[in-house]
Amino acid sequence: MEDETQQEQASPTVQKRVRDSFNRQGLMAHLGARLTHIGPGRVHIVLPARPEMAQQHGYVHAGATSAIADSAGGYAALTLFNEDSEVLTVEYKINLLTPAAGTHLEAIGTVLRSGRTLTVCQLEVYGVQGDGERKLVANGQQTLIRVTRPAE
Amino acid sequence: MEDETQQEQASPTVQKRVRDSFNRQGLMAHLGARLTHIGPGRVHIVLPARPEMAQQHGYVHAGATSAIADSAGGYAALTLFNEDSEVLTVEYKINLLTPAAGTHLEAIGTVLRSGRTLTVCQLEVYGVQGDGERKLVANGQQTLIRVTRPAE
Amino acid sequence: MEDETQQEQASPTVQKRVRDSFNRQGLMAHLGARLTHIGPGRVHIVLPARPEMAQQHGYVHAGATSAIADSAGGYAALTLFNEDSEVLTVEYKINLLTPAAGTHLEAIGTVLRSGRTLTVCQLEVYGVQGDGERKLVANGQQTLIRVTRPAE
Amino acid sequence: MEDETQQEQASPTVQKRVRDSFNRQGLMAHLGARLTHIGPGRVHIVLPARPEMAQQHGYVHAGATSAIADSAGGYAALTLFNEDSEVLTVEYKINLLTPAAGTHLEAIGTVLRSGRTLTVCQLEVYGVQGDGERKLVANGQQTLIRVTRPAE
Repeated sequence: MEDETQQEQASPTVQKRVRDSFNRQGLMAHLGARLTHIGPGRVHIVLPARPEMAQQHGYVHAGATSAIADSAGGYAALTLFNEDSEVLTVEYKINLLTPAAGTHLEAIGTVLRSGRTLTVCQLEVYGVQGDGERKLVANGQQTLIRVTRPAE
Repeated sequence: MEDETQQEQASPTVQKRVRDSFNRQGLMAHLGARLTHIGPGRVHIVLPARPEMAQQHGYVHAGATSAIADSAGGYAALTLFNEDSEVLTVEYKINLLTPAAGTHLEAIGTVLRSGRTLTVCQLEVYGVQGDGERKLVANGQQTLIRVTRPAE
Repeated sequence: MEDETQQEQASPTVQKRVRDSFNRQGLMAHLGARLTHIGPGRVHIVLPARPEMAQQHGYVHAGATSAIADSAGGYAALTLFNEDSEVLTVEYKINLLTPAAGTHLEAIGTVLRSGRTLTVCQLEVYGVQGDGERKLVANGQQTLIRVTRPAE
Repeated sequence: MEDETQQEQASPTVQKRVRDSFNRQGLMAHLGARLTHIGPGRVHIVLPARPEMAQQHGYVHAGATSAIADSAGGYAALTLFNEDSEVLTVEYKINLLTPAAGTHLEAIGTVLRSGRTLTVCQLEVYGVQGDGERKLVANGQQTLIRVTRPAE
């Protein structure tokens, strides 16, 4: 894994907002995914490669790979919004470059452009071996829309 | 749901091959997805909308929506291959058209073009209410590659 | 070509708005493309397959194929807007299914979902032979955003 | 523009192969595009922003932007092939990030992964002003297939 101690962290307020939202995503808990870095415009999510994540050949399923990539991009966008804004995925495209092997996957969402209405993110997913060797297994691009948080 | 009794079924051999592969996908079982139709060039997968599938607002997460869409397209491609061929997703693009609400989702993968090496599928996901009302919640397009099954 | 006399036409006002905008697109004139159908949520554009459109093997270049597909989708979206709205392409994805052969190409843009801010279109491009035989050569999906027309 | 004298050049043989193919693309000449850099796995194409390239608001049309992006990616892939291989675009996805303004556009295609059959490229297009100021106007991802050159 990258040396994340070297990376810029988002403010505590933003980190809390991202963690609270992530913790409300039943799917992330069900998959066993966890947030490992929340920087301004950049979020990492790690997914252990359990058998429950597999496709028919034992590699991580494209759906699980995509799920953490989509969430990483969504939260990367959210780090740049103020607190009354939410984010929804409009669409994404992902290339599965090579079988998703490793003890875990690490998805990295990075904001390419943050506009008033739309945000575009780059999505990368690495397969990480027990010895730390990393390989890019998926690469994608995502469009998100900012929505005003409904009053509660 | 559509009246699936009216739809063309794949041969028993093909159906068995698809079911066997689906049953080896740990992720599909973990999500609670099941195959509901296997026709030539067309496969349906249903996913109950449990809390474990949710994003932060309680709708089905784009990752779960995508996972069943990706598998439906992959198996639609597989129905047109002979038994020594396997299929891998090269890439897909999906638009999340509206929040994925309903008691369950139904993903439909349909082969648009089946070539010697590459297959292109259309992906549709419907949100289905308890009263049977259906709404298109996601629409996508997928590229797959045929690979020769490794000798066992 | 399809029998376009059978297809629903947009109102004269909408048709004029689409034609006026199309006529301001220098690229469409430079490519030799022309509008052949303007229906509500559906627009056709035809492109003669001149040598100036070719890629290195003599087929129509993916860039020319995409250009008419993108414009067809954009104008399909525009037919459903009121007169103070304009449309911009956010993104699109296109599969080139087979070499784009024929005397001309016909691009068809069809609105899949028209929302308040975003519109999603399906894009199809057919290669048409002199004898009228048609073949789907490209298939895509496009996201557009509605913007308020700047005061003139 | 970047200081291209600092960038690694492809071998003269590869450069010639790319230039010969580019010169057979009628569309590139018709648009007025030219090759400005041919490195191993990386190709640049420049397009002057003439009125013939415009959409209805005077910016460069998404179709022209995409055409040079697609060709840049295709030739980036080709630089890594041996001489009996050709390349065809399977699909691409492109986000138009901001209006394509400038005196010219520069498209950069970069190989992300070069496999035996498939290549995946990143596509970037910059709008460049007369004073050299550059802005990313489009970003995309492309899948290409290697084909054996037909005997002549």
